[in-house]
Amino acid sequence: MLRKDLHFSMDEYRQRVRAVKAAMDHQGIELLLLVDPANMNYLTGYDGWSFYVHQGVLVSLDREEPLWFGRQQDSNGARITSWLAEESIAGYPDHYVQSRYTHTMRFVADLIKERGWEGRKTGVEMDGYWFSARMFRELNEQLPGSSFADATSLVPWVRSVKSEAEIAYIRQAAAITEKAMRTAVDMIDTGIPEKDVAAAVSAAQIAGTEEYGGDSSAIFPIIPSAERTSSAHLTFHPDRRYQKGDVVLLELGAARYRYHAPLSRTVYLGSVPEDLKKVADVVVSGLGRTLDFIQPGLTAEEVEEYWRGCLKGTGIEKPSRVGYSFGLAYVPDWGEHTISLRPGDKTVLEPGMTIHFMPGIWLDTYGFECSEPFLVTPGGCEKLADFPQELFTKKS
Amino acid sequence: MLRKDLHFSMDEYRQRVRAVKAAMDHQGIELLLLVDPANMNYLTGYDGWSFYVHQGVLVSLDREEPLWFGRQQDSNGARITSWLAEESIAGYPDHYVQSRYTHTMRFVADLIKERGWEGRKTGVEMDGYWFSARMFRELNEQLPGSSFADATSLVPWVRSVKSEAEIAYIRQAAAITEKAMRTAVDMIDTGIPEKDVAAAVSAAQIAGTEEYGGDSSAIFPIIPSAERTSSAHLTFHPDRRYQKGDVVLLELGAARYRYHAPLSRTVYLGSVPEDLKKVADVVVSGLGRTLDFIQPGLTAEEVEEYWRGCLKGTGIEKPSRVGYSFGLAYVPDWGEHTISLRPGDKTVLEPGMTIHFMPGIWLDTYGFECSEPFLVTPGGCEKLADFPQELFTKKS
Repeated sequence: MLRKDLHFSMDEYRQRVRAVKAAMDHQGIELLLLVDPANMNYLTGYDGWSFYVHQGVLVSLDREEPLWFGRQQDSNGARITSWLAEESIAGYPDHYVQSRYTHTMRFVADLIKERGWEGRKTGVEMDGYWFSARMFRELNEQLPGSSFADATSLVPWVRSVKSEAEIAYIRQAAAITEKAMRTAVDMIDTGIPEKDVAAAVSAAQIAGTEEYGGDSSAIFPIIPSAERTSSAHLTFHPDRRYQKGDVVLLELGAARYRYHAPLSRTVYLGSVPEDLKKVADVVVSGLGRTLDFIQPGLTAEEVEEYWRGCLKGTGIEKPSRVGYSFGLAYVPDWGEHTISLRPGDKTVLEPGMTIHFMPGIWLDTYGFECSEPFLVTPGGCEKLADFPQELFTKKS
Repeated sequence: MLRKDLHFSMDEYRQRVRAVKAAMDHQGIELLLLVDPANMNYLTGYDGWSFYVHQGVLVSLDREEPLWFGRQQDSNGARITSWLAEESIAGYPDHYVQSRYTHTMRFVADLIKERGWEGRKTGVEMDGYWFSARMFRELNEQLPGSSFADATSLVPWVRSVKSEAEIAYIRQAAAITEKAMRTAVDMIDTGIPEKDVAAAVSAAQIAGTEEYGGDSSAIFPIIPSAERTSSAHLTFHPDRRYQKGDVVLLELGAARYRYHAPLSRTVYLGSVPEDLKKVADVVVSGLGRTLDFIQPGLTAEEVEEYWRGCLKGTGIEKPSRVGYSFGLAYVPDWGEHTISLRPGDKTVLEPGMTIHFMPGIWLDTYGFECSEPFLVTPGGCEKLADFPQELFTKKS
């Protein structure tokens, strides 16, 4: 008998299932197929690097527990990391894995038929990373009586407001993020190999604090230098050393039990050029003013509008969204794909939401980033990380 | 003007495009949409942690260069990391990102229409991680004149035979993997925090060698201990220290310019129980005999059959596949999803293929792993990593 290793109380898991079933009911969805590993983890606790093969969770309005399915050799992972009972764990034989002759969704369709769930209105994550076009086609072929609805965001919206226990893990993640960021800021200097900084940051993410360790982060440390900072998602160069005149961007996050806390800062090696100095001043000032402005009841677009107002007359523009909801996540993204701080997002902020305010500026030949992850509180918002808001410089 | 930073010659990239177009032509595919980041990188060099938003490459039989599309703020990444000319880079505005009102595939459909490619037989990665059901539905709606074919494996099959330049990077990755594995085997002992081993391994993966650095690996180090070794894809426990009597599995890989070399070993803390000792002896012996047996011209299933013969009469069974093709990869998997060493796989081995022979055994309460990544050579096969094949023990 394998011992279960859970990170939340049974009450909390049950509450999550109830909230998801309420959302299903409101949307007229009787059966929900989740294959996103964060959604699976949220409802069941299941946590393994097994999402490179098909796996998922079925939630039916008329069954108390979600039903896990995955590769047979990963079933013990479900027994250990999820709260589910034995009868809620269904492993499929290995010949389904990446087969040219059958498909895992046929196994899933059989599960659905055996339980009398064919014909139900079935929600699927139409635009999720893990729900392929082929999976959808197979389900349609195997379950001609079922109808399907797009439920990509159903669980992420439930996840968008965090419990106290979740916030505690996010705070622990933020403490690790601070350590990783400090490691990078202290270490980056002219002549240092970029790879050594990335290695030290990776180690800091996992080593955590004296009291607890971190988890693998959903986004590998993004640490571009020089011209590579003119793009948003390049990282360190494995064969280069920092040079005088480099801008180095740091977009780092650490995770605790898969709960993340992202943070961005910028380092400059040498005497800061006037134009970069100006960008930094404008961004840091706007960041502080916007954080002061945030409070529950405002909409996501009102926050972005206020930020845009801070840029007015400075000549600096930020044409992309300036923030997003984050939390429980797996690769490739710690964002929750729900709240975006941008024009048109009518989400009303409420206490318990965690948002990365990320006003990254990418100009033609370099970028500047200074961001803050924050928690919406009853009275405003609270920064989750404690790290100086400045353009760090090394005079070397 | 941003400088390009390419890892292969232009001849090699052009040869790759020619090989893919030949495969398209043979399958009657006129236009190919690739969204898998490894396929994108293979053809264009593009390399960024931007695959959490929609991006891709369009290959048309009647256009010399592939056409990259992605988020506007990632376009400079394409200018720097790909060999593509300016007219082959199309950035989309930020309002397409995770929108509730439009979809990136509408931008892509417009690209296709502008170039007169609507109505073409279009290959898509139906069962890839990155091609969602919604993407496929949008394309069908926007391009009613086009017909679609499943081309999930088209580029991966071209990738399955590696060039000399690719093999050189895989050898560099293997050298890093050896260092990461040595770090872990030396460090694991009773009383050591599991997180500290995972941190040191993560750092070793990136720090690389004196001469070159590594890249983020497509699979986070899988280092379960004790009962967690009874499942295939659990990793270290962030709050636990190793205890006497632990089995510790190590499934690690390092990457060089995204080219991987995976390797597995096992450590036991204490006096090895007889049943584990027997499993180890059988697996290590069968591994060696099977590697001696492998040569070009054999099929993948014949290799597995030979391995299974090595287990005969030992009482040990291995019901899952025992290996797979690996190489250029991004999260969540370094496997190429083409060749599998298992019954029914008729792939004929040929020189230049790189395969991870991975006879992992997961029993009810623990597992054992000892694997080898190998290159098929004209005369047989060559181990890519040099690491002792044994059950490592600490007497502590």
